[in-house]
Amino acid sequence: MFDKILIANRGEIAVRIIRACRDMGITSVAVYSTADADALHTTLADEAVCIGGPAPKDSYLNIQNIIGAAQGSGAQAIHPGFGFLSENPDFAAACEACGLTFIGPSAHTIALLGDKVAARDTAKKAGVPVTPGSDGAVSTAKEAAAIAGEIGYPVMLKAASGGGGKGIRKVDDPADLEHEFQNAAAEAGMSFGDSRVYVEKFVADPRHIEFQILADAHGDTIHLFERECSIQRRHQKLVEEAPSSLLSASLRQEMGDAAVRVAKQAGYRGAGTVEFLVDSDLNYYFCEMNARIQVEHPVTELVCGLDLIREQIRIAAGERLPLRQDQLRPLCHAIECRINAEDPYRNFAPCPGQITGLNVPGGAGVRVDSAVYQGYRIPPYYDSMLAKLICYGEDRAQAIARMKRALSEYLFEGVTTNIDLAMAIIHAPQFAAGDFDTNFLERSQLLARFSQPDGGDAQ
Amino acid sequence: MFDKILIANRGEIAVRIIRACRDMGITSVAVYSTADADALHTTLADEAVCIGGPAPKDSYLNIQNIIGAAQGSGAQAIHPGFGFLSENPDFAAACEACGLTFIGPSAHTIALLGDKVAARDTAKKAGVPVTPGSDGAVSTAKEAAAIAGEIGYPVMLKAASGGGGKGIRKVDDPADLEHEFQNAAAEAGMSFGDSRVYVEKFVADPRHIEFQILADAHGDTIHLFERECSIQRRHQKLVEEAPSSLLSASLRQEMGDAAVRVAKQAGYRGAGTVEFLVDSDLNYYFCEMNARIQVEHPVTELVCGLDLIREQIRIAAGERLPLRQDQLRPLCHAIECRINAEDPYRNFAPCPGQITGLNVPGGAGVRVDSAVYQGYRIPPYYDSMLAKLICYGEDRAQAIARMKRALSEYLFEGVTTNIDLAMAIIHAPQFAAGDFDTNFLERSQLLARFSQPDGGDAQ
Repeated sequence: MFDKILIANRGEIAVRIIRACRDMGITSVAVYSTADADALHTTLADEAVCIGGPAPKDSYLNIQNIIGAAQGSGAQAIHPGFGFLSENPDFAAACEACGLTFIGPSAHTIALLGDKVAARDTAKKAGVPVTPGSDGAVSTAKEAAAIAGEIGYPVMLKAASGGGGKGIRKVDDPADLEHEFQNAAAEAGMSFGDSRVYVEKFVADPRHIEFQILADAHGDTIHLFERECSIQRRHQKLVEEAPSSLLSASLRQEMGDAAVRVAKQAGYRGAGTVEFLVDSDLNYYFCEMNARIQVEHPVTELVCGLDLIREQIRIAAGERLPLRQDQLRPLCHAIECRINAEDPYRNFAPCPGQITGLNVPGGAGVRVDSAVYQGYRIPPYYDSMLAKLICYGEDRAQAIARMKRALSEYLFEGVTTNIDLAMAIIHAPQFAAGDFDTNFLERSQLLARFSQPDGGDAQ
Repeated sequence: MFDKILIANRGEIAVRIIRACRDMGITSVAVYSTADADALHTTLADEAVCIGGPAPKDSYLNIQNIIGAAQGSGAQAIHPGFGFLSENPDFAAACEACGLTFIGPSAHTIALLGDKVAARDTAKKAGVPVTPGSDGAVSTAKEAAAIAGEIGYPVMLKAASGGGGKGIRKVDDPADLEHEFQNAAAEAGMSFGDSRVYVEKFVADPRHIEFQILADAHGDTIHLFERECSIQRRHQKLVEEAPSSLLSASLRQEMGDAAVRVAKQAGYRGAGTVEFLVDSDLNYYFCEMNARIQVEHPVTELVCGLDLIREQIRIAAGERLPLRQDQLRPLCHAIECRINAEDPYRNFAPCPGQITGLNVPGGAGVRVDSAVYQGYRIPPYYDSMLAKLICYGEDRAQAIARMKRALSEYLFEGVTTNIDLAMAIIHAPQFAAGDFDTNFLERSQLLARFSQPDGGDAQ
């Protein structure tokens, strides 16, 4: 087992990994930008190294500085967290080239899964359904039109190297296809240096359901059940839970088996997530596989009674999985709300500033994973997530009741958060009924409640 | 089910009960003394009624004012918490006489279990071992001496109506017996208006192991496994955990069955605790049954996945137990540390004052049940417990590691707490080895570390 691990990240996930290291008796090394000298991850870690200025490219995306910090501190392994360099194959390769263990899959697997066309192909080889569409990238608008005509409109044009919503176009009308194909290819080229585009059938109002995978270096791969992540705003997840109220036991088993097959086909090692879209007829389609820990991993930890960061570290150290698939049983129902410093009444504008007052909820069935403290000044350079509030109970009703209670106790002064929106979602009758999909927020008019209080238009 | 419950308590347990009510959709009514106008329980409850001055007898022990508050607010039931009026049969009887449901056992059962002689008798009738001693109270020193001679010294002389360490004498030498008998009887008469005393064999260096009981009004009684509470200072528990590392599966089952038999024999209803002393040969002896929720109930909640306050309320409303004995399985290992405002470096003097800074631990495997917030001014009138920190994990080693981590993150400014002592206990090799009993703190010299830093004598 490692003696010392460097955490190449910041915020809540850096704190999460530092805590897991401490629980395992491993020395933790934080890295921080000059804007994060007072950040919780900087102060909580056993050691901390400043790696550059506030701009991510100067610090949390600076491979050379991070590897230098690892070598200088004597760390044997690097945990990348999520975001930043976590899915960058060059970073994984650079770590290994410098004799540092990258806590995640191989650079080859990261690259394979980062190429959406190759990932689709991997799923197909594993016998897992993908949305109908092109076999790989299409070269011309004409080729795209032929496939679209076959599978039926609307279709999606997507960048092969895509991510973050760039290089994606929905096409409803055949007349728009050629134009949109050129646009998508141009944007893909600009954004990713790779103008390849592929065609997929558009799935209307799907559920987003993902399976947590654990795979060790000895060839064993299991899934830790699913997470339901359909409550989103502009493709950003807001509320996640496990189990999903949509899945029957047999569909859960079928999709879980499919997720394990994808991971095996990709030669996956570590903790990863296979994302599916599920349509209203309960057809499921492989969407992508994320080669990292997810923001929403705590709901799975509570449901399964496992520490997933610990398991990542154990797997990277060559240890075996902690249990077999047939030893897993769900222990509870868990729900997570992301607490962001953004103003739902001002079109979710980020709200950096100083937290002058803070009351953190507690009690039965409440877990708080936070990166902040009273007096903390939120820097303007990074994403707006402050904390994750996770509530769990014997069943979904108890988990929801506890989330309502905990949200009502969570008080921030000095900065505005999205807690009011989280409250509105958790109190919505459709949420209680499990009746939602990825378009829930738009369709429900919930967001309309948060138009600007002065009557101005949200931008 | 009740619509509205009044909570006849303060501090952490009042907050705990308010949260359970909220989770069940029940309106909560707090009562508070004039010293507690800004207390967390006063502000968190749906309604709050001032019931008198700071002295407990004027407020939290004032039966008339509390029942008046319940009637005035339209509450249908009263939860007494622990301490204060929770084991006062007159209070339970007064509630019922006024048409209010007392959330706990009947006044008759409370009275039975409050009489230590009657409680011993109840255990004996249930076929449960008690420490060798007198059959009931003894009338004269001569009678006590005869029994002591039979069972062997040292013996304990205990007040039949005892509690809180009053009216208890340990006698090592037969020559001291008559003198100590008179002392014990006089103190018992002064303290409890009942000078009856009984004789018990002294159990050297026992473990304190207690079983959580749930009994409904339909005749079903189960136990929720044990809690190990041997880490004590002057009979005050400091660290509690479940399961106990001392018990084999068969001894657990035997003692659990014994606890259920005691509860049934006492006609018990609600949540209660059967306390045992276990000697170094693993002989166990019934000690007493507490007719209320215990401070340390959260460790059982985590191990069993149940909300015990909710179960108390459900039972009081006439509902059935949530599961059968054979459906229970332990889900984790859990440890609780009591966080008190007291100075271990000044002989544990209480430290009221204002909490000017506060960092609450969080993350995987951490539950915090607290009654305080940053800016809160701790009043000097009540017990010193501020919060309970409960950590849990897949096994005892993980729970201990997480407790070490969480204690290191728990920061109070403005008041002194016993966190340093909790750290010393959790880090002690004997604790890790499970090698301790109720005299652990004294014998280990751990407390000696906390002599006054200026070299003065602890008083």
